[in-house]
Amino acid sequence: MSRKRSLLELEHLSADEITSFLKLARRMQTRSPKPLLRGKRIALLFYEASTRTRVSFEFAAKLLGTHTSIISATASSIEKGESLIDTGKTLQALGADCIVVRHPSSGAPHVLARTLQIPIINAGDGMHEHPSQGLLDAYTILRHKKSLKNLRITMIGDIQHSRVVRSNVHLLSKFGAQIILCGPPELLPDYATTLAPGVKVTRHMEEATRKADVVMMLRVQKERLAGLKLDAENYIAHYQLTPERLNLAKSDAIVMHPGPMVRGMEIQSEVADSPQSVVEEQVHNGVYVRMAILATCLGVA
Amino acid sequence: MSRKRSLLELEHLSADEITSFLKLARRMQTRSPKPLLRGKRIALLFYEASTRTRVSFEFAAKLLGTHTSIISATASSIEKGESLIDTGKTLQALGADCIVVRHPSSGAPHVLARTLQIPIINAGDGMHEHPSQGLLDAYTILRHKKSLKNLRITMIGDIQHSRVVRSNVHLLSKFGAQIILCGPPELLPDYATTLAPGVKVTRHMEEATRKADVVMMLRVQKERLAGLKLDAENYIAHYQLTPERLNLAKSDAIVMHPGPMVRGMEIQSEVADSPQSVVEEQVHNGVYVRMAILATCLGVA
Amino acid sequence: MSRKRSLLELEHLSADEITSFLKLARRMQTRSPKPLLRGKRIALLFYEASTRTRVSFEFAAKLLGTHTSIISATASSIEKGESLIDTGKTLQALGADCIVVRHPSSGAPHVLARTLQIPIINAGDGMHEHPSQGLLDAYTILRHKKSLKNLRITMIGDIQHSRVVRSNVHLLSKFGAQIILCGPPELLPDYATTLAPGVKVTRHMEEATRKADVVMMLRVQKERLAGLKLDAENYIAHYQLTPERLNLAKSDAIVMHPGPMVRGMEIQSEVADSPQSVVEEQVHNGVYVRMAILATCLGVA
Repeated sequence: MSRKRSLLELEHLSADEITSFLKLARRMQTRSPKPLLRGKRIALLFYEASTRTRVSFEFAAKLLGTHTSIISATASSIEKGESLIDTGKTLQALGADCIVVRHPSSGAPHVLARTLQIPIINAGDGMHEHPSQGLLDAYTILRHKKSLKNLRITMIGDIQHSRVVRSNVHLLSKFGAQIILCGPPELLPDYATTLAPGVKVTRHMEEATRKADVVMMLRVQKERLAGLKLDAENYIAHYQLTPERLNLAKSDAIVMHPGPMVRGMEIQSEVADSPQSVVEEQVHNGVYVRMAILATCLGVA
Repeated sequence: MSRKRSLLELEHLSADEITSFLKLARRMQTRSPKPLLRGKRIALLFYEASTRTRVSFEFAAKLLGTHTSIISATASSIEKGESLIDTGKTLQALGADCIVVRHPSSGAPHVLARTLQIPIINAGDGMHEHPSQGLLDAYTILRHKKSLKNLRITMIGDIQHSRVVRSNVHLLSKFGAQIILCGPPELLPDYATTLAPGVKVTRHMEEATRKADVVMMLRVQKERLAGLKLDAENYIAHYQLTPERLNLAKSDAIVMHPGPMVRGMEIQSEVADSPQSVVEEQVHNGVYVRMAILATCLGVA
Repeated sequence: MSRKRSLLELEHLSADEITSFLKLARRMQTRSPKPLLRGKRIALLFYEASTRTRVSFEFAAKLLGTHTSIISATASSIEKGESLIDTGKTLQALGADCIVVRHPSSGAPHVLARTLQIPIINAGDGMHEHPSQGLLDAYTILRHKKSLKNLRITMIGDIQHSRVVRSNVHLLSKFGAQIILCGPPELLPDYATTLAPGVKVTRHMEEATRKADVVMMLRVQKERLAGLKLDAENYIAHYQLTPERLNLAKSDAIVMHPGPMVRGMEIQSEVADSPQSVVEEQVHNGVYVRMAILATCLGVA
């Protein structure tokens, strides 16, 4: 029985801590599920819409034998303007053993973790981090590649606003991967190189994908492009993942996407559905990774 | 252990297949529930509002020991414009063993079934079919009548837009029932007679109800009448089920309605609450029928 | 095995009945949860937004081994204009063993209870009552005070619109507490003294808090003040709970609030978070009280 702990971000986890999450996820995948957390209460507090992350945590929690309760931004006190902290205190007082929280503001899970005694799991906070996604991405890469060390991993698209990128960069950097970020200046500022050691920036997708082991595409929202006065057609011409651009990568390169994909925008269906795409495998692995996260954070792993 | 299968529509089921659903539903009703599907994951994907169908499938699934997750049109990636297929692939990748789907577009469940490997259960698609409703209606009729053969069954109201009618007509026709559809031309085109063998159309409610064994009323939405420039008062005068009109039916005729009823519109409360009404029994039977559907589709029946 | 019963209001319960709820809640708190209601189906029918009450009943129901289904005002037939009674009949027909209902109209749970055969639990109806809150408040007071008799309990704020006040006043009056209601005339009419024996009204907060054993604050909505042409600053000046005003109460007085609190409006954070505040304990106790309510209403207590 280990101590309970929150999972707020990957930036401050050690490589060892990350490795133990990944190992436990592997055990979750290869063994039939046990009700390790039987009778525990998990609050799923979602201030933003979500299918895959919410259902993934929900199934993970139920497979471990817990009682779950979903609290979403609609149909709850959240509407009445109760503060995040008071909502958190209420859930803790209701006997929640853990809160899984998604919030549009960066740092919201940290605020809860500082205030409450129960473990907080960050399911995505603003433009900060999405640690369970970072872990499941690393888990998925390692199902296809022997090691993260020196792997050439490129992330393409709206880097600036992506919490997925931030979690991935922090994790992959700790294991010595080469990280190439690619996108137009409006979506990828030059200072992104300072995110972590080993990060490079390029504006040219051909340069980014050349000899890549992993091509990770990011959702690009048309509304965001419009807000930045970026032309969608121009964006597609320069940054969409096409079969030709994927051909520049290593022949065994894998294509990843955290979802939801906007087909025809950042990625062509031909690529999204190709044998190199591991998009569905990412989703599938996510359940095991989140079982590992829940078991670890609740101190039974 | 049978093979897994989807339930998309009743039109292409054989009478034998339908009978085996109904027999299994009867066993579900007469025995105490067993966790036949323990640990299975059921995704309830609802793109349209629903109480009775959603809660019915939810209770049915839980009584069989499954984990359920509800994904509704609000508060999910559906809002972000993810395609139906990608949402389906995501749910499958999340380990869903079955998707129960309601969708405003006819054929949406077929699209999922063609793309995914897991069973899809149609919980109502556009103006196409609502097969679990058709099965529970047949089940309910058979609790009151010895056989469907030569039974005089009339359906009255907005036939044109009713997926319930379509499923009922296909099922009942296979068993040799006489089907009389009744409504104004705007809600019931002449070509409805081609739906299945044994279907007749009338514009006169007195003709429809005369000597009927089953009177099935359909919800009529005021907004729809307004859109078709039909006068609500006039509609009520011609097509509302009143005690007088019900008196034309056989003395042991039953009154059905898929719900939700609009009292004072298509049906008078005096009839809706009369001993001849089996509206609540329909709802009650639905849980057993849906347990049978889940068990069959997941291959344990 | 007792008979099944509804819990609609505290006004017409005897002191003995209330005491037996409180005693059972205590047993629920001190023993580990048993699946007393295993396999039962609980419908949580919420026509108003709620976090704490809904999640509290949900966890209580799940800890007792039931299957729960949440039906909220969005995403359900409620939107289609089905009547409350028909929705209730549908849930009963779906096999619900109990309906927990929150509704904006006073008396809605009574309407269900008169029509249905299953127990109805009022989770808050309009400006009428919120009996589970009244019970958990009494339970919480009794964890700190030996008896309710002669206890000086003051309730401050929007008394007029508060179902929490009404339930508390009825309960506390039965046990001989002294009740002081405090607020401006627009939120507290003079005739409030007729609510129950032993109720006094004052407009001066200093008078209300002086020598109080319990200070219960109520949420005040800015929109309501605006609607009544009350000035928020003026309200705060006269009726906000500050450390100075709390100092007038007994040194061992406890501060209560049904939540959600509007900090800076009716209560200062310094008080809300002080050792005298039992706000979180109220929430915590609510789960045990609701387990007791469910077990009692379903006839297993």
